[in-house]
Amino acid sequence: MADPIATNPELYSVAFENDRVRVLRYRDRPGDRTLPHSHPDSVMITASAFERRLHHGGRSVDVSLPAGEVRWLDAQEHAGENIGDTETVTFFVELKDSAVVRSLSSGDAPLGPS
Amino acid sequence: MADPIATNPELYSVAFENDRVRVLRYRDRPGDRTLPHSHPDSVMITASAFERRLHHGGRSVDVSLPAGEVRWLDAQEHAGENIGDTETVTFFVELKDSAVVRSLSSGDAPLGPS
Repeated sequence: MADPIATNPELYSVAFENDRVRVLRYRDRPGDRTLPHSHPDSVMITASAFERRLHHGGRSVDVSLPAGEVRWLDAQEHAGENIGDTETVTFFVELKDSAVVRSLSSGDAPLGPS
Repeated sequence: MADPIATNPELYSVAFENDRVRVLRYRDRPGDRTLPHSHPDSVMITASAFERRLHHGGRSVDVSLPAGEVRWLDAQEHAGENIGDTETVTFFVELKDSAVVRSLSSGDAPLGPS
């Protein structure tokens, strides 16, 4: 599992962390791409509208969301690109409890937020 | 424990819920007050700047935060009022795991976000 803080430190930063959660802040510009990385089960809260294309294992999905949206992200690996014409700012509240491993190992989670 | 969705449904709404988390959206205007209510251990992510006064058991604390701030909120009971001159918009990611009960029963949590 590649931690996005390690793979794209210029885009991801740790906004808060304790023994229960880690909260990432993500910020990019149009055309920016991430390297393949993984997320545990997370809540995503958007601080800007954005349009992204997510890739994993030959699949891709386009995601378009307004600001102020709350979505669940099943644990997954993907790479993303900003395919819109605006900056993306969003938060990921990563859950540290044991269900993270269960969900990631199942391999049938939807790509992107649900 | 008074659920803020029940005590102030005009200010709090459920933005997302599953078996792991419940996410509340809070929105008020200057001068608005909440009735006493409780929060489990939560991550708060602000979508606006705000100034609030929180009350509980004879204590009060003023909280002033910018937009885009991420804070941990120990499980607690309080009532709040918007003492600023701007609308407040913020999210609470409530954690459903067992530590919620442990933390709330300890009674020594700081009032407001830490």
